[in-house]
Amino acid sequence: MNKVPFKGVIAYPVTPFDKNENVDLLLFRKQVERLITAGCHGIAPLGSTGVMPYLNDTEKEELTETCIQQVNGRVPTLVGVSNLTTERTVYHAQFAEKAGATAVMIIPMSYWKLTDDEIVQHYDTVASKISIPIMAYNNPATGGVDMSPALLKRLLEIPNVTMIKESTGDIQRMYYLRKELGEEVAFYNGSNPLALAAFSAGANGWCTAAPNLIPELNIALYEAVQENDLEKAQRIFYKQVDLLKFIVAKGLPRSIKAGLDLLGINGGHFKGPLQPLNEAEIHELNMILSAIKREV
Amino acid sequence: MNKVPFKGVIAYPVTPFDKNENVDLLLFRKQVERLITAGCHGIAPLGSTGVMPYLNDTEKEELTETCIQQVNGRVPTLVGVSNLTTERTVYHAQFAEKAGATAVMIIPMSYWKLTDDEIVQHYDTVASKISIPIMAYNNPATGGVDMSPALLKRLLEIPNVTMIKESTGDIQRMYYLRKELGEEVAFYNGSNPLALAAFSAGANGWCTAAPNLIPELNIALYEAVQENDLEKAQRIFYKQVDLLKFIVAKGLPRSIKAGLDLLGINGGHFKGPLQPLNEAEIHELNMILSAIKREV
Amino acid sequence: MNKVPFKGVIAYPVTPFDKNENVDLLLFRKQVERLITAGCHGIAPLGSTGVMPYLNDTEKEELTETCIQQVNGRVPTLVGVSNLTTERTVYHAQFAEKAGATAVMIIPMSYWKLTDDEIVQHYDTVASKISIPIMAYNNPATGGVDMSPALLKRLLEIPNVTMIKESTGDIQRMYYLRKELGEEVAFYNGSNPLALAAFSAGANGWCTAAPNLIPELNIALYEAVQENDLEKAQRIFYKQVDLLKFIVAKGLPRSIKAGLDLLGINGGHFKGPLQPLNEAEIHELNMILSAIKREV
Amino acid sequence: MNKVPFKGVIAYPVTPFDKNENVDLLLFRKQVERLITAGCHGIAPLGSTGVMPYLNDTEKEELTETCIQQVNGRVPTLVGVSNLTTERTVYHAQFAEKAGATAVMIIPMSYWKLTDDEIVQHYDTVASKISIPIMAYNNPATGGVDMSPALLKRLLEIPNVTMIKESTGDIQRMYYLRKELGEEVAFYNGSNPLALAAFSAGANGWCTAAPNLIPELNIALYEAVQENDLEKAQRIFYKQVDLLKFIVAKGLPRSIKAGLDLLGINGGHFKGPLQPLNEAEIHELNMILSAIKREV
Repeated sequence: MNKVPFKGVIAYPVTPFDKNENVDLLLFRKQVERLITAGCHGIAPLGSTGVMPYLNDTEKEELTETCIQQVNGRVPTLVGVSNLTTERTVYHAQFAEKAGATAVMIIPMSYWKLTDDEIVQHYDTVASKISIPIMAYNNPATGGVDMSPALLKRLLEIPNVTMIKESTGDIQRMYYLRKELGEEVAFYNGSNPLALAAFSAGANGWCTAAPNLIPELNIALYEAVQENDLEKAQRIFYKQVDLLKFIVAKGLPRSIKAGLDLLGINGGHFKGPLQPLNEAEIHELNMILSAIKREV
Repeated sequence: MNKVPFKGVIAYPVTPFDKNENVDLLLFRKQVERLITAGCHGIAPLGSTGVMPYLNDTEKEELTETCIQQVNGRVPTLVGVSNLTTERTVYHAQFAEKAGATAVMIIPMSYWKLTDDEIVQHYDTVASKISIPIMAYNNPATGGVDMSPALLKRLLEIPNVTMIKESTGDIQRMYYLRKELGEEVAFYNGSNPLALAAFSAGANGWCTAAPNLIPELNIALYEAVQENDLEKAQRIFYKQVDLLKFIVAKGLPRSIKAGLDLLGINGGHFKGPLQPLNEAEIHELNMILSAIKREV
Repeated sequence: MNKVPFKGVIAYPVTPFDKNENVDLLLFRKQVERLITAGCHGIAPLGSTGVMPYLNDTEKEELTETCIQQVNGRVPTLVGVSNLTTERTVYHAQFAEKAGATAVMIIPMSYWKLTDDEIVQHYDTVASKISIPIMAYNNPATGGVDMSPALLKRLLEIPNVTMIKESTGDIQRMYYLRKELGEEVAFYNGSNPLALAAFSAGANGWCTAAPNLIPELNIALYEAVQENDLEKAQRIFYKQVDLLKFIVAKGLPRSIKAGLDLLGINGGHFKGPLQPLNEAEIHELNMILSAIKREV
Repeated sequence: MNKVPFKGVIAYPVTPFDKNENVDLLLFRKQVERLITAGCHGIAPLGSTGVMPYLNDTEKEELTETCIQQVNGRVPTLVGVSNLTTERTVYHAQFAEKAGATAVMIIPMSYWKLTDDEIVQHYDTVASKISIPIMAYNNPATGGVDMSPALLKRLLEIPNVTMIKESTGDIQRMYYLRKELGEEVAFYNGSNPLALAAFSAGANGWCTAAPNLIPELNIALYEAVQENDLEKAQRIFYKQVDLLKFIVAKGLPRSIKAGLDLLGINGGHFKGPLQPLNEAEIHELNMILSAIKREV
C-alpha cells in the first residue's frame, strides 16, 4: 500500500443530475475525463462538490464504479464514503475498496456533536475494516464538527489514517500540523482561497473543485511552488483568487455548475432543495471568468 | 384540520437500540407509554432525541407506526420527517400522514448552506404534498442552518406551516416572533434551559426530552404559567434548571439514556458513532437527579 | 452600609455636550431631574450611556458631583468609575465615594485580554480602598472581556462586591447566578431586550437608559412583576420591546439622544468620533416611539 | 513626504515600568537600542506591545521623545497615537509629528461600536491636522472594532492614510487588499503566526514584538522572501512559529517581558491590572526559547 498516494491538484467533479433528479452518469463520465485530460493529479468523486450526502446508496455505488472505470488507473482516486453512522461508513468504504479506489476520504458528519473519543472510535472501526489509506477531512462548515489539531494528531496514530485534509480556512491549523508532526505528515488544503498560504506552509496537495473551471491556473500554482518560485506562485494565485473566493462563498456545487454552463459545458441539474445560482450571481461569476480569460 | 394542535409539554422519546444496533420497539413502546401516563400533552417521535437522522427508512417507518399505535389518540403526535433532500422529506411526511400523525416537524437539514429561497421552496414543496400541519424547526446547532426570524415569518405564509419551534437559545427570537406576528402565532420552545423565559414570552409549548426523566416538574412549570403565578413558576424552574442544562450540554440522546438507566428504567443502546456518557458524566447526572429528588 | 441599595429601574442619563464638545452640565441636570420625577428607583451617571470612557478626569468629576447634588438623596446613585488601569479606577472610586455616591459600578475594561486572576486582583484592590458597595458589570460587547459566571462568583467573595450587572444578553447567565448563589444574590439586568426574561429569572433590578424615553413603561413592567402578574408583565413588555431592541442595536448614547430630540427635549451633542443617528435611523425611531404612544 | 516609509521587520518595544508603576525610560532606551542593533528596519513605540492605552499623556510624550532621540534617524519610527476620542488622537498625532516621528499608527479604539462613517471621519479629521503618513491598524481583538476590507479601501482614499496594518489573523483579508488595490497598496502583517502567509501574500512588512526576543530569525524570514526562496522561508518560519503563537496567545506585553527576563535582559514591571505570566507559562516559554536556541 502506498500510504500517501496524493500530491498536487486533486480535482473534485460535480455530480450532474437530469431534470428528474436522476444522476446523469454519461455527463459525469465526461466531466471526469476533462479533469484528467487537463492534467489534474488525482480525482475525488463523492466529495462535498459531488453532493455525496444527498445521494442514495445506489447512486453512490454507480458513481464510484463509473469514476474508477473512467479514470482507469491514470491517476489515483479518492472516494468520499462519509456517513452519519459508523456502520454505513464501513459499508461504503468497503464498497469503494472493492471497486478499486486508491483511498477513501472521511469527514465525521454530525447531527449530535461528537466527542473526540466517538470520532476516534469511528475512524478506528472503519480503518480496521479496509486496507486502503484514509484521508481524514476536517470541515466544520459542512460536517458540523471541528476536529482540533490535537484530535487530528490522534487520528494519525490509526495505521491507515495517513492523510489530513484541512478546510477550516485557518492557516494556523496547517502550521500546527507540520510543526507538531514533522515534515513527514501529509496534509492537504481543502480551503480554496487559502491555496497560496497552504502551499507556502508545505501542503502536499490541494483538494479542489476549481479545476472544473480553471485547471491550468490551479496546476500552474502547484508547479510554481514546486519550482520554489514564490513570486511566480504569487502572481498566478492572484489571477485566480476571485474565482476561488466566489465558489466557496456561493457553495461549490452551485457555483461550479453555473461556471460549467458559462463555459459551454453542460453542468447538469440539481436535487432539491439545492437550486441554481440566481441571475445576479451568474453575472458576477461571468465577470470573474472573463477577467481570468483576459489576463491569462 | 386543527392548525395548532399542540400546547404544553410535548415530550420526545429516545430511540432505544439493542446490542446489535437494531431498534428495540418493545422498549420504545414502554417509554412512550411512560410519557403519556405522566401527563405529557403531546408525543414527538423521531426528533433529535430520537436520533432520527441516524435511522434508515425501515426503522423510521416502524417507529412512526409503533408510536402512533401506542399513543392511540390520547394526545396529539408530532413526527419528525426531516431529510437532506426534498424528495425524501416528502416521502416521510406522506408516510407519517398516512400512519395517522397529527402533524410533522421539519428542520431544514443542511450540508451545503441553504439560501432562504431554497428553504422556502423546500417547505412549500413538502407542504403541498400533505394536508396535516407542519412545525418548522430552527436549530442551527444540529441542523447546521440558522433561519432568521424574517425567514420564519415567510415560512408561516405557507398555509400548513402553522407552528415554529425555536431552539437557538436566544430568547429575543421569540420576542420577535410574538411581536411581529401577533398573539396568534404558535411558537414553541426547543431550548430546554430557556423554558421559563420562553413561557414568560408567551410560548405555546415546550418541546422537550426532559419528561423522560422529570415529567412532573416539566408539567408543573407549564401549569404555574397557566395559573399566571410567576413566583411559583420561577421556584419550579430553578428546581430543574441544572438538569435542563446538563442534558443539553451533553447531548439529549446520551444524557436521557444515562438518566433512564439511573432511574432503573432501561435506556437501551446506541448506534455508532454515538457512545454512552462516561463515568464522570454519569456521576454528575446522578448528583443532579438526586438533588431534584430531595427537593421535590 | 446597605450592601444592596438598588432594586427596580436604575436609570442611566446621557452626558450631553455642547457644540464645542464641552459637557453641558445644566442640560445634564435637567435630564437627571426628569428621570427622578418619572419615578425611577436609582440614578447611574457615567455609565456606558453617559459615554464615561470618552470623558477626561475633570468632566467625570463635575458630572459625578452635579448628579449627586441634583439627586440629593431622593434615590440611590450608582457612579461608573471603570478605567483601564487599576490605579485610575481606585482614584475615581474614591472620588465618587467622597462625593456621596451610594455605590460604584465597575466593568473590567480591557485592551489586552485580562486573565481571571488579573480581574479578581483589580476588583480586590479597588474594593480595599473604598467602603461603599461595588456592582461588578459584565458586558463583553463594550468592555471587551467576558466574565464567566464562575468568575463572577469569585468576585462576590470580595466583601464589598455585592451586586452583579449582567449584560451579555444570555439569560442562562442569570439562571446560573441565581441557582449557584441562591436567592440572596443581587443580580441586575443590563441587556434591555431581556427585561422580561430577567425579571422572570428573579433579577433585582434593571439597569437601563430606556427611562430617558419611556419611563412609565419601564416602571410598569417592574411593578407588574412585583404584583406577580405575568400576563400583565408580558403585555407591558411587548409594548416596549421594539424600542428596547432599537436602542441597543444603534448604541445607547446615539439612540437616546435622537429620542430625546424627537420628544422635544434637547439631547445635546457628541464628542467625536461618535456621531448622531442618520435620517433613516431617526425615522425608524420615530415610528417606534409613535407606535408606543398610540398603544399606551 | 515618503508616503510608504516602512518595509521589512518593524519592531515594537515594550514599555518597562519600575516597581512603583513609573515608566523606566533608561531601560526603554536600552531596549530600543537592542532592536536597532539587531537590524530591525523600523521602530514602533506606543503600540499594543507598549501598552499605549494604559499610559497617561505625560508618559506617552516622554516615551515618544525618548524613542525618537534614541533611534536618531537610523531607521524610520512609527508612533502609536490612538485614542477613544478624535480630539485626543489629533493631539497625540500632532505631538508625534512635532517630535520627529516618521509616521503614526492609528487603531479606531471603541467602546461603543463605531459605524463606518464615524471611522472614516475620525481618520479624516486626524489626517487633515498632520502632514506625516498614517498607518491604519485593524485589530478587533484589542481595539474592539473590525474594519472590513471595503472600509480599509475607503480609508486609503484619505491622502495621508497610506498604509494598512492587518491583525485579524485572516490571511484572506490581505489577499483582498492586494487584489482590490493592486501591487501598489502597502499592507503590513500584524498577526505574528501569519508571518509566512503574509509575506507570501506580498506584505510589505511585518509589525512585530518578536524581535525583542528573536530578531535574527524574524529578519532572516524577511530576507528569504526577498531572495524568492520559499523553501528557505518555510524552514526559517517553522523554527520560530511556536514562539510566535505563544506570544500572541499569552498577550504580547506579558510574554515579551517574561522572555526578556529569561534572556537575562531586564523586562521591567507592569501597570495593574496587567500581571506577569505565571510559573507554568514562564516554563513553557523557556522550553520554546531553548528549542529555538538549539536549532539555530
